[in-house]
Amino acid sequence: MAEQTHPTIVDGWFREINDTCFPGQAFTLKVDRILYHARSEFQDILVFKSTHYGNVLVLDGIVQCTERDEFAYQEMITHIPLYLHTDPKKVLVIGGGDGGVIRELLKHQQLAEITLVEIDETVIRLAREYLPGMARGLDDPRVQVKLCDGFEFLRKASSAEQSEKYDVIITDSSDPEGPAEAFFQERYFRLLKDALRDDNSVVIAQTSENVWLNIKYLEDLTATAKKVFPNTRYCNTMVPTYTSGQLGLIVCSPDASKDLTTPARTPTAQEDENLKYYNPEIHHASFVLPNWADQLLNN
Amino acid sequence: MAEQTHPTIVDGWFREINDTCFPGQAFTLKVDRILYHARSEFQDILVFKSTHYGNVLVLDGIVQCTERDEFAYQEMITHIPLYLHTDPKKVLVIGGGDGGVIRELLKHQQLAEITLVEIDETVIRLAREYLPGMARGLDDPRVQVKLCDGFEFLRKASSAEQSEKYDVIITDSSDPEGPAEAFFQERYFRLLKDALRDDNSVVIAQTSENVWLNIKYLEDLTATAKKVFPNTRYCNTMVPTYTSGQLGLIVCSPDASKDLTTPARTPTAQEDENLKYYNPEIHHASFVLPNWADQLLNN
Repeated sequence: MAEQTHPTIVDGWFREINDTCFPGQAFTLKVDRILYHARSEFQDILVFKSTHYGNVLVLDGIVQCTERDEFAYQEMITHIPLYLHTDPKKVLVIGGGDGGVIRELLKHQQLAEITLVEIDETVIRLAREYLPGMARGLDDPRVQVKLCDGFEFLRKASSAEQSEKYDVIITDSSDPEGPAEAFFQERYFRLLKDALRDDNSVVIAQTSENVWLNIKYLEDLTATAKKVFPNTRYCNTMVPTYTSGQLGLIVCSPDASKDLTTPARTPTAQEDENLKYYNPEIHHASFVLPNWADQLLNN
Repeated sequence: MAEQTHPTIVDGWFREINDTCFPGQAFTLKVDRILYHARSEFQDILVFKSTHYGNVLVLDGIVQCTERDEFAYQEMITHIPLYLHTDPKKVLVIGGGDGGVIRELLKHQQLAEITLVEIDETVIRLAREYLPGMARGLDDPRVQVKLCDGFEFLRKASSAEQSEKYDVIITDSSDPEGPAEAFFQERYFRLLKDALRDDNSVVIAQTSENVWLNIKYLEDLTATAKKVFPNTRYCNTMVPTYTSGQLGLIVCSPDASKDLTTPARTPTAQEDENLKYYNPEIHHASFVLPNWADQLLNN
């Protein structure tokens, strides 16, 4: 049931104050009304209607998406790996129960099989109710939804027959504090690699950070990924309702010679019509960093 | 004298709440202590020490710069036009009394003459005291500081001898509400054009907006600039303490054939050592927009 208040809302403004993730700074959104609040088995879930960004999903006090700008994140985390692959057929999404990545994947007609692994059924149920523009693809016949732990699912997938493995794996998790903690560790990257079909395959993961917030963490995370994937690159997407206005992604390939900054395919005319954010130029631009960050993450 | 409080600070947090500029959203910074507050003849000026971003200058309630991330703005608004010019010698800066753009200009050894026009002496005085890392270039012998209205200065400059005119003009103003209002109108762009030395010259101006906050305003502003400069392009820089994390700039050239997205020169090795943000790749990337914004601003 919707409550009249929440600890993150003061004087009608939601505040993303979090001393661990965003010390000394916060993004705030004006609240029209609270639509839902509960603690699920896994996390604190808040949904509110904002005055200018549509409905907003908040997990453990951190904005996951708003209706107005979510496509900036969903399109980049989906289309960067999809257009890096020359012929993707089978995709796995870990997390992302809101359905946004699925909606983007369904723009690729050539995909035969899409699997979504979400630990928290409540997120899916709430997305269907409050974020219908994101959740609308979850019922597509090409999509299988598995309600289980992503790490455990991946453990099984990594020991499956090679032909059953994935062309692209997208980790669309929440932040490392909470149920997604395991998704930021070396053993997770090893499972990712073992669950890939071949050298053409691509992995992408959201990092929960950006170069301004916590570049030390990103140095460690890219170093961890590089132990497993020699070809690992950091890129970022600009999302105004994430603190600092940007969010980092890491892209990994088992093929050391693959240029991750340049798409292997360009969108067809029909695909392009459905893209509000992604284009081949912004794919490339998303890997370009300011000198100080480039030196720390790419040298 | 420093006061103990300010209307924008509640519970120890500065909040950039502004129903005109940022309806329904705000960036907030935790305040260590207020260093200065007064109303000058022209505007409300607040300087505070933040817990994580160093000292912060706020004009009329809007963050102008923080010590930690100011270089992201200063480098891009300075080096984009400087490296677009094949041989700049003489530069005019309108606004920017904090000195940040001057510091960046001084990295270009080839410049012979730099003029800063600032209407509000208080900004210069406060920058010397509280933002010394930005103001340090103001005493360089190549720099002339004029305390007067930028619009009036430009009116005279536009009717000077051609040889007295400028290779690059940078409008580093505050926002259109307040003393900088005239800097966003067609007659200002006409003066800018008339104050340029030749077709190689370049103009850049901060827009106070970005594609997420107010793209209608940016459409109007670029249309206004295009009436005067057929070659006008929008680009943006990523600054975490500006609301949405990005700020738009417009770049104009009298030469319709000039490619504004590609620098005409690359930094020398010595210049490159002094650049924390700018590089030729980020110059190009700053002009790349998401599809929806590209269609509105570039088509």
